Amino acid sequence: MDTILTVNGGSSSLKCGLYALQGGELRCLIHLKVENLLGEPTLFKVRDEQNQVLDAHELDCRNVPQNERHQFALQEVLQWVDAHLPESHLIATGHRVVHGGDQYSAPLLLDDATLTQLETLIPLAPLHQPYNLKLVQACRKLAPELPVVACFDTMFHAQQPRLERLYALPRRLVDKGVHRYGFHGLSYEYIQRQLTLAGAGNLKTVACHLGAGASMCAIRNGRSVASSMGFTAVEGLPMGSRTGNLDPGVLLYLMREENMDVDALEKLLYKESGWLGISGISSDMKTLHQANDPKAEEAIDMFCYRVALEMGRLTAALEGVEQVVFSGGVGENDADVRARVLKRCGWLGIKLDEAANQQNSGIISTADSAVTVRVMPTNEELMIATHVDELLH
Amino acid sequence: MDTILTVNGGSSSLKCGLYALQGGELRCLIHLKVENLLGEPTLFKVRDEQNQVLDAHELDCRNVPQNERHQFALQEVLQWVDAHLPESHLIATGHRVVHGGDQYSAPLLLDDATLTQLETLIPLAPLHQPYNLKLVQACRKLAPELPVVACFDTMFHAQQPRLERLYALPRRLVDKGVHRYGFHGLSYEYIQRQLTLAGAGNLKTVACHLGAGASMCAIRNGRSVASSMGFTAVEGLPMGSRTGNLDPGVLLYLMREENMDVDALEKLLYKESGWLGISGISSDMKTLHQANDPKAEEAIDMFCYRVALEMGRLTAALEGVEQVVFSGGVGENDADVRARVLKRCGWLGIKLDEAANQQNSGIISTADSAVTVRVMPTNEELMIATHVDELLH
Repeated sequence: MDTILTVNGGSSSLKCGLYALQGGELRCLIHLKVENLLGEPTLFKVRDEQNQVLDAHELDCRNVPQNERHQFALQEVLQWVDAHLPESHLIATGHRVVHGGDQYSAPLLLDDATLTQLETLIPLAPLHQPYNLKLVQACRKLAPELPVVACFDTMFHAQQPRLERLYALPRRLVDKGVHRYGFHGLSYEYIQRQLTLAGAGNLKTVACHLGAGASMCAIRNGRSVASSMGFTAVEGLPMGSRTGNLDPGVLLYLMREENMDVDALEKLLYKESGWLGISGISSDMKTLHQANDPKAEEAIDMFCYRVALEMGRLTAALEGVEQVVFSGGVGENDADVRARVLKRCGWLGIKLDEAANQQNSGIISTADSAVTVRVMPTNEELMIATHVDELLH
Repeated sequence: MDTILTVNGGSSSLKCGLYALQGGELRCLIHLKVENLLGEPTLFKVRDEQNQVLDAHELDCRNVPQNERHQFALQEVLQWVDAHLPESHLIATGHRVVHGGDQYSAPLLLDDATLTQLETLIPLAPLHQPYNLKLVQACRKLAPELPVVACFDTMFHAQQPRLERLYALPRRLVDKGVHRYGFHGLSYEYIQRQLTLAGAGNLKTVACHLGAGASMCAIRNGRSVASSMGFTAVEGLPMGSRTGNLDPGVLLYLMREENMDVDALEKLLYKESGWLGISGISSDMKTLHQANDPKAEEAIDMFCYRVALEMGRLTAALEGVEQVVFSGGVGENDADVRARVLKRCGWLGIKLDEAANQQNSGIISTADSAVTVRVMPTNEELMIATHVDELLH
């Protein structure tokens, strides 16, 4: 049975999916996850398609140098597959790579030259790109015969109109690549394909990928025309621990008045802000709901307010909205957040079906709502596997 | 004749207005302007109410130390008034002060204690506050008997809802004053008073103060509920030479990859970006229109695109819009910019009366437009004089 392994890795985690090609369809066999890769204990977990745990144990990484742990984890994944699914015949790996820069706007079969090119993009995404590429290199080392395909978070947005892509910076910086890119592209592409299957692929759509990482995307005629994330994944909505939009003058102030250097600022913007910063409690939305604390309440309210404002901004980019999609961990499961957002969106002609919303139904707007509001599970992993399949066949 | 002098000073310029109290009304007698205060030649110009030049000459500042030039310029202004308008009896000066912080949300009669308080706000507006206060001190020295009133650019926005005021930063920073303030408040307050006089003061309004400094404000029931400028006057729309909204991650990138320090970043964000940065030609909108160059065209288009997107964001804050006001140098006089912006706003029900727009008419929307669009000259100077008058009487 031909299979494709999807690889999605961060600084300290690795998520893989094994997909079988059966009758022209891709079917997920298992999900494999390694958590806390740089700490202790490192956990290795395998679940099946129905989310049942097949295996869970600690990985002893104490004798593995930190910079070899990504390769070590991937090796464990490949060995587990070999041992437990001997019928699997791996034909390629597909990697989530955060940044394709200006050069790459489609899935890319990697070789030495293109990999070197992708390394030059590390300054554009220093918190993600190095680990993405480390895992590419590990694959090429562990299974040199396998094709390795990169799928970029930026690629769905690559055709955005130039006016949307620009910051008002000197041209020399724009030409060096300092412009808006947009992220979560694999999620939006998956959503767009599902909308097309549902016969709703040509509506003016605002898609909301809401989770600890959160962004929104305006889609017209199936293409991204604007997005809340820009040059980096810190712009836009307040997230679990990221600021979202912030007056750049705040950074000047913090450099002068708090003597913060670039590392301190990066930590502040990415790790200490967002829902965590406002609540002082947690970067996890469920925890905030359960906290029963006015500061947690304020963090939730602020998030919903900013989603509603971004809805207005992206609707302006579309010059009108016909469809809204909620996706991502919070978007798919948090009826309260959706209700708080949509309460502010009545002016767009949105009418919420409260019962449908409580049940996380596929459509949560009423029949007479001017805008169809959907809840749709996203699947970036399947999108990667699909791209690999399409590229190879 | 009792008169009030308004004082509006920047790092290298001083603009004053002399207002007479006549029959319960404030009437502008003259405008006085000193330009290029820190350079050569320094120009001194006086115009009457009809904008006719009454006097224009160079000021020789070569023997005046740089840090005494603001006082020197103000002294020239007071002497000119004494010499040419002997019937004027100055009863107070009214100062535009950019920042009132969290403490001051109304016009303030200054004394030693409050002036010291305002000095502690310099880190919040290092490019403007020091010069505003220098001119306050000069007045107190040159005419110690006169009441001195501060009018803050932040005060019209001080009652914005807390969700709008917050950035998603750790609470300790929010509590230290790192939140959104909004500026151009004297302009918006003047516009709001004019709307009230026109019987349109209670509509949901987006006011656009467009010039080399540009911002927008959402007004509901006569009060500011959201604005494009935030912690500093660099956030929001792209301006003559300011970036407007920018992913804070761009600053981290520039610190790492271009070794930019805080002074270089400040210069970039405030002086080298915006219309100037994108066009590479000029920070002046008229010059861009005349340039007949695709880069200038792109700078204009980008500005209009961003105004249209901000219209969507602020309309979301208002949950609908009934009235749009264009003001400021560009907003009042540039029919082309207004047309380009409004072409993108048809989805809001706005219909432009093109002939009225060409004539900068008071109302430029058609009779069947769902939203009334106005062009309204702003007058921050008169607003300051009005505040002084109201405070003293």
